[in-house]
Amino acid sequence: MMETKKVNKKMTLLMFSGEYDKALAGLILANSAREMGLDVTIFFAFWGLTLVRDPGKMTMEDKSLFEQMFGLMTPQGVEDLPLSRMNMAGLGKAMLKEMMEDDKTPTLTDFLNGARKKGVKFYGCKLSVDVMGFKEEEFIPELEIITATEYLQDALESQIQLFI
Amino acid sequence: MMETKKVNKKMTLLMFSGEYDKALAGLILANSAREMGLDVTIFFAFWGLTLVRDPGKMTMEDKSLFEQMFGLMTPQGVEDLPLSRMNMAGLGKAMLKEMMEDDKTPTLTDFLNGARKKGVKFYGCKLSVDVMGFKEEEFIPELEIITATEYLQDALESQIQLFI
Amino acid sequence: MMETKKVNKKMTLLMFSGEYDKALAGLILANSAREMGLDVTIFFAFWGLTLVRDPGKMTMEDKSLFEQMFGLMTPQGVEDLPLSRMNMAGLGKAMLKEMMEDDKTPTLTDFLNGARKKGVKFYGCKLSVDVMGFKEEEFIPELEIITATEYLQDALESQIQLFI
Repeated sequence: MMETKKVNKKMTLLMFSGEYDKALAGLILANSAREMGLDVTIFFAFWGLTLVRDPGKMTMEDKSLFEQMFGLMTPQGVEDLPLSRMNMAGLGKAMLKEMMEDDKTPTLTDFLNGARKKGVKFYGCKLSVDVMGFKEEEFIPELEIITATEYLQDALESQIQLFI
Repeated sequence: MMETKKVNKKMTLLMFSGEYDKALAGLILANSAREMGLDVTIFFAFWGLTLVRDPGKMTMEDKSLFEQMFGLMTPQGVEDLPLSRMNMAGLGKAMLKEMMEDDKTPTLTDFLNGARKKGVKFYGCKLSVDVMGFKEEEFIPELEIITATEYLQDALESQIQLFI
Repeated sequence: MMETKKVNKKMTLLMFSGEYDKALAGLILANSAREMGLDVTIFFAFWGLTLVRDPGKMTMEDKSLFEQMFGLMTPQGVEDLPLSRMNMAGLGKAMLKEMMEDDKTPTLTDFLNGARKKGVKFYGCKLSVDVMGFKEEEFIPELEIITATEYLQDALESQIQLFI
């Protein structure tokens, strides 16, 4: 009876930012919370959706010109994200990644894959997906598209909610 | 007896950012939460106050030079807000607005007016208003000035609190 | 019997940003919450750690070249932090500080020292400290290094949690 691990508590993250360092913060919290036995949900909205794009699956079909441009100009997958500060055209981020490697810290991709394996629920904001013109098949397969209302229902049942 | 709609639950947003995309996120959440029957409070602080300026009501009276400059340099009303990323001197924002229009998504102004009509409570942070030199009559009439302590009392009773 | 002041309620801030205005928001909330009798915890992660560096205690020992560069390039103590917007190479911040002074608002240093005196708990994120190569003695003495898991345990018991 491993019931003791089940705490019936929940964390809901609203991942709005599409930046390397903030994504790292969100995914480290998600992994840690799952290890503690919490239910974890991440609701990706706006720039946050760039974290869960599948780099190999961009499509240009059925998109307006702006949607095509937008798809090309925004990062494709987590390693492509800029830093929120001191990005310095990528130099700051390269430095941070070196420092993480020196320290044997897992990469952002490792934390994302860890969250996927540990059963974190991935949701994408329907309105953002529609406005940005993304297609469901352009995301990692775990991502389920839901409305802001469904996110709020989830958040109401959560002990921890953060907007990142 | 419409009592069923009343859930007696509450969301409190602290709107710190004065950016178009983050304002959109906050106001979409506020509208959705009201439709679900939640009580919703938004506490506007710092840059967030630029969202609730009434564009036609700027005054220069009783302001120091810095306060006058500040009033002129900061956005006057929601459509004037920059994007938090890829603003590109307004080009990125214009593109986002086109994409929203193509998609028949309401504008930020629509979401703000929706929140006003739906009975979202609008509070402004007293300390921020004082420091920035804004006058109460420069804001939309719904805005009530309160202290950080009053915001915290509100947040303590809320099931969802987010810092945006 | 001053038991009435003790509300047994708690606020947990995750201070991720290392910006003057956001630090001000976080520390004003922390001071106000303590005055209301709440337990207050601030968990400093990533850029947020630059708020709790002790300006006089930077060390170059036992650091890689990147860690040394990083220590030099990031702000040393609160008054050194940039604004999140309109920083304009320091001009915007100087203006804000003038406006705060005109208004007799305490400085960021005052709010930080207030929080220290009022018994706010200061925690630093272990993973961030390790990656950035900071040494425990480079921080203000109140700072205790803990893991993300320990922060989450704290947050689970809190009525208010914000990611700043």
